[in-house]
Amino acid sequence: MPTRPERKLETPEQAVRDANHRFYRALASLSLAEMEAVWLHEDWIECVHPGWDMLLGWEEVQASFVRIFSSTRRIQMEIHSVWVRMEGDVAWVACTEHVTSTFDSGFDQAMAQATNIFVRRDIPAGAEGQRGGSKWFLVAHHASPLAAGQPTRVQ
Amino acid sequence: MPTRPERKLETPEQAVRDANHRFYRALASLSLAEMEAVWLHEDWIECVHPGWDMLLGWEEVQASFVRIFSSTRRIQMEIHSVWVRMEGDVAWVACTEHVTSTFDSGFDQAMAQATNIFVRRDIPAGAEGQRGGSKWFLVAHHASPLAAGQPTRVQ
Repeated sequence: MPTRPERKLETPEQAVRDANHRFYRALASLSLAEMEAVWLHEDWIECVHPGWDMLLGWEEVQASFVRIFSSTRRIQMEIHSVWVRMEGDVAWVACTEHVTSTFDSGFDQAMAQATNIFVRRDIPAGAEGQRGGSKWFLVAHHASPLAAGQPTRVQ
Repeated sequence: MPTRPERKLETPEQAVRDANHRFYRALASLSLAEMEAVWLHEDWIECVHPGWDMLLGWEEVQASFVRIFSSTRRIQMEIHSVWVRMEGDVAWVACTEHVTSTFDSGFDQAMAQATNIFVRRDIPAGAEGQRGGSKWFLVAHHASPLAAGQPTRVQ
């Protein structure tokens, strides 16, 4: 008789790591729907893509991903050195991003250091197919180029 | 008869702005003592100086300021576009830094986008000459170069 897999209870820190992972999965899948599910849609959220000025509010952040996804054929991401800190309903994650972006014209390889801030919000049962409870939403993403991974463009 | 100046009650957001201001004042004054008073001295605090790898823990962060202060003759700072968000005992500040650093060998001018995370902690009366209550401490500083202000080195 097959044994039932043990149900793992998710620790609070794991829930933050999962939210962070969903952000990078959305990026790698070039899926605007997945990206929309990751962020809190408020006018005070912020995003700094490497080398960009800060974007403020969901409208600007969403538009940036529309632009990135429409100009990119493929993004491969590896996330390392993930480090999580939680204080109440706020958590922040530091990690390094190893990114290979493929465009029609070639590809970029880059490394970035990211700080991602999440807030925990209650969600009603049934929303987004969830059982209710709470969910961590991304509210700030700040990524900056790391010297070791200067972009290499191959045309 | 002279009127007494009204005593202004500090709003919670103003307290965060003040903490952020103290950080940049410590930087501009090259004062390690002032810098020490700004940060929470924990092994989980983090700091990303523009172009540096992430430093983790007060020991590494403190050492970085010792190094910066010992190699710099003067730092002039202007902080713009300060934007504050608070959630419970956590607050984060986005701002742009316009920095002119003077060394023995010349000077650098640079612009950076910063994300600074603060946590509020109770402090006992008498500590650091305070009346007790709470204080915002810096726990994460992430600054990244802005394209508009590429460093200009004059030897």
